[in-house]
Amino acid sequence: MAAKPGARQSISGDVLRPVSLKDNRIILLDQRKIPDAVEEFDATALEDMFFAIQDMVVRGAPAIGVAAALGLAIEARNIASDPDIDFACFLEKLSRAKERLQSSRPTAVNLRWATERIFELAENNRQKTPLEISDLLVASAEAMIEKDILVNKAIGEYGANLLTGKSSVLTHCNAGALATCGWGTALGVIRSAFERGMDLTVYVDETRPRQQGARLTVWELLHDGIVPTLITDSMAGYLMLQGKVDAVIVGADRVALNGDAANKIGTYSLAVLAQAHGIPFYIAAPISTIDPHIVNGAQIPIEERDGDEVLVISGQSISTDGVKVLNPAFDVTPARLISGIITERGVLYSPYEESIRNVL
Amino acid sequence: MAAKPGARQSISGDVLRPVSLKDNRIILLDQRKIPDAVEEFDATALEDMFFAIQDMVVRGAPAIGVAAALGLAIEARNIASDPDIDFACFLEKLSRAKERLQSSRPTAVNLRWATERIFELAENNRQKTPLEISDLLVASAEAMIEKDILVNKAIGEYGANLLTGKSSVLTHCNAGALATCGWGTALGVIRSAFERGMDLTVYVDETRPRQQGARLTVWELLHDGIVPTLITDSMAGYLMLQGKVDAVIVGADRVALNGDAANKIGTYSLAVLAQAHGIPFYIAAPISTIDPHIVNGAQIPIEERDGDEVLVISGQSISTDGVKVLNPAFDVTPARLISGIITERGVLYSPYEESIRNVL
Repeated sequence: MAAKPGARQSISGDVLRPVSLKDNRIILLDQRKIPDAVEEFDATALEDMFFAIQDMVVRGAPAIGVAAALGLAIEARNIASDPDIDFACFLEKLSRAKERLQSSRPTAVNLRWATERIFELAENNRQKTPLEISDLLVASAEAMIEKDILVNKAIGEYGANLLTGKSSVLTHCNAGALATCGWGTALGVIRSAFERGMDLTVYVDETRPRQQGARLTVWELLHDGIVPTLITDSMAGYLMLQGKVDAVIVGADRVALNGDAANKIGTYSLAVLAQAHGIPFYIAAPISTIDPHIVNGAQIPIEERDGDEVLVISGQSISTDGVKVLNPAFDVTPARLISGIITERGVLYSPYEESIRNVL
Repeated sequence: MAAKPGARQSISGDVLRPVSLKDNRIILLDQRKIPDAVEEFDATALEDMFFAIQDMVVRGAPAIGVAAALGLAIEARNIASDPDIDFACFLEKLSRAKERLQSSRPTAVNLRWATERIFELAENNRQKTPLEISDLLVASAEAMIEKDILVNKAIGEYGANLLTGKSSVLTHCNAGALATCGWGTALGVIRSAFERGMDLTVYVDETRPRQQGARLTVWELLHDGIVPTLITDSMAGYLMLQGKVDAVIVGADRVALNGDAANKIGTYSLAVLAQAHGIPFYIAAPISTIDPHIVNGAQIPIEERDGDEVLVISGQSISTDGVKVLNPAFDVTPARLISGIITERGVLYSPYEESIRNVL
């Protein structure tokens, strides 16, 4: 009943690349369709990229960031193709494109971070022509892809150091290769641990409503030969009570200066449960996920998405017309519940105000 | 997208009767199909009743108990239809039928409780003919239906006393009219509170894997004009953090003598979360749910069901072939996390060893 024949074979080559630039076109793996189909989505046009982020063709804070940076850089090239455009007009149009992309989803800060980097690069190169600038932006955005993978591998190494040779890790949602430019943050830790030959058991929360755990995390771990165990979100506590979970590792969409971390809805419950069972709870996220403008989690905007994400699965209604529904896409885990934040520059510990200030 | 036109209209009359005896046939509402269709299932034959319980045509500890009692009583009539049968042979065949029904699902104790009551009634009437006995058993099983509704209404009244005029209740799975013979245990409390005119907000956990919250609880509350708010199981903790939940009320499948309570998987997580947020957590269950043979929760058998319940929703796979899966149908909430057990004889409080001993 759960067969997805061919899905694992249909990615060419070994490395999952959810975001790539091919012949000046931005190609995304369409994550709405995995694991039923592995299809590419062309997000080269600005509005296509906006749609791709909003509709979660591409998702995961780091992947969204790089995708949007590429989108902005390619848009710069479009803008610069007008031979009469001057720098001020170029920059103004680029600013509007940046704001459009930033408005696609509110919670992940990497989206803003990456597009601001691209925009600043334009601002700082006013001595060049718009065409020269846009080439620079495309090169810079493209470099973010390889940079992101290196960052993830560093996160993976630091994270694997926290695990013992034989242990069980529970993860939520998809903080994997698909959520980044490859390797992953939380799943990067798991990949690095496997690479070291550790004997890990990996539990994956289904992660309702959009089932990124069941759909994406399971698929990408199987793709790499790691066989995880899928559970419903409701089973995590019982597994912990039975002593089956040695650590919880998840990603983050935005981390405040005090260490409070926004991540996929359900993360907060896991953190409370982990603390109640004396199980370490780790966030794995690049430094770019830390928002220097946000003092604590209460300031992080939480996206409320369409209720049909809860009510409809695979095109089928699971409930009755007339019911109300809530669908917050994220929650905020307070720093006091976080055992450590695994970054590419090492693991940050409490007091986070201090460790985060030092790393920024 | 979530429309189920007609579903609310297709039950005749006002009162939901998941288990009934009509013209000597046992008629169940087929709960596998609600809310997509409201269909009756004839479970008169012993093997049909076994299947109906195992496949969850009928589910919910009290409903299973009464359905199985009716099934056993009707089977007694079949056995007694052999004009040459003597009491010993009648009783032996009845004993085998009882054991068959009891083996259909392991966790809910009401199944055993109700079938044992029927069997004891046969044992204690050996002076009668098998046919006379079987008439007695059918009458006794049928009386359990009305008795169960009265029990639920008493639970509802005691439970409603625990709520203030305006409050928010979170429930999990379906401990409603559909899980009983009508009115419900946890949902009975909610119905009684609404009947008193209280201004309740009702949050309903989807309850993966089988989505009894989304499918059954939402449907039966809407049927009665109560509009609940559906959330995924992963959202409960975040709602509590936001102060949106004043009480958690759930049913139980089996309660140990020390107050430990087995209920639908995910209940334990809710209890931990409720305690972490200072929110009262109540079990609503009839006295027959207390198992006098079970000292503590560790002795309660937990049913592990087919992994496809997790992997397949509405006939569609949600994951990738090759993944492992766990599917414990229940978990056990330790007594220390339970604020009170709402029974038809009042609310039991800690120390439960004492309050349970007194009520038995």
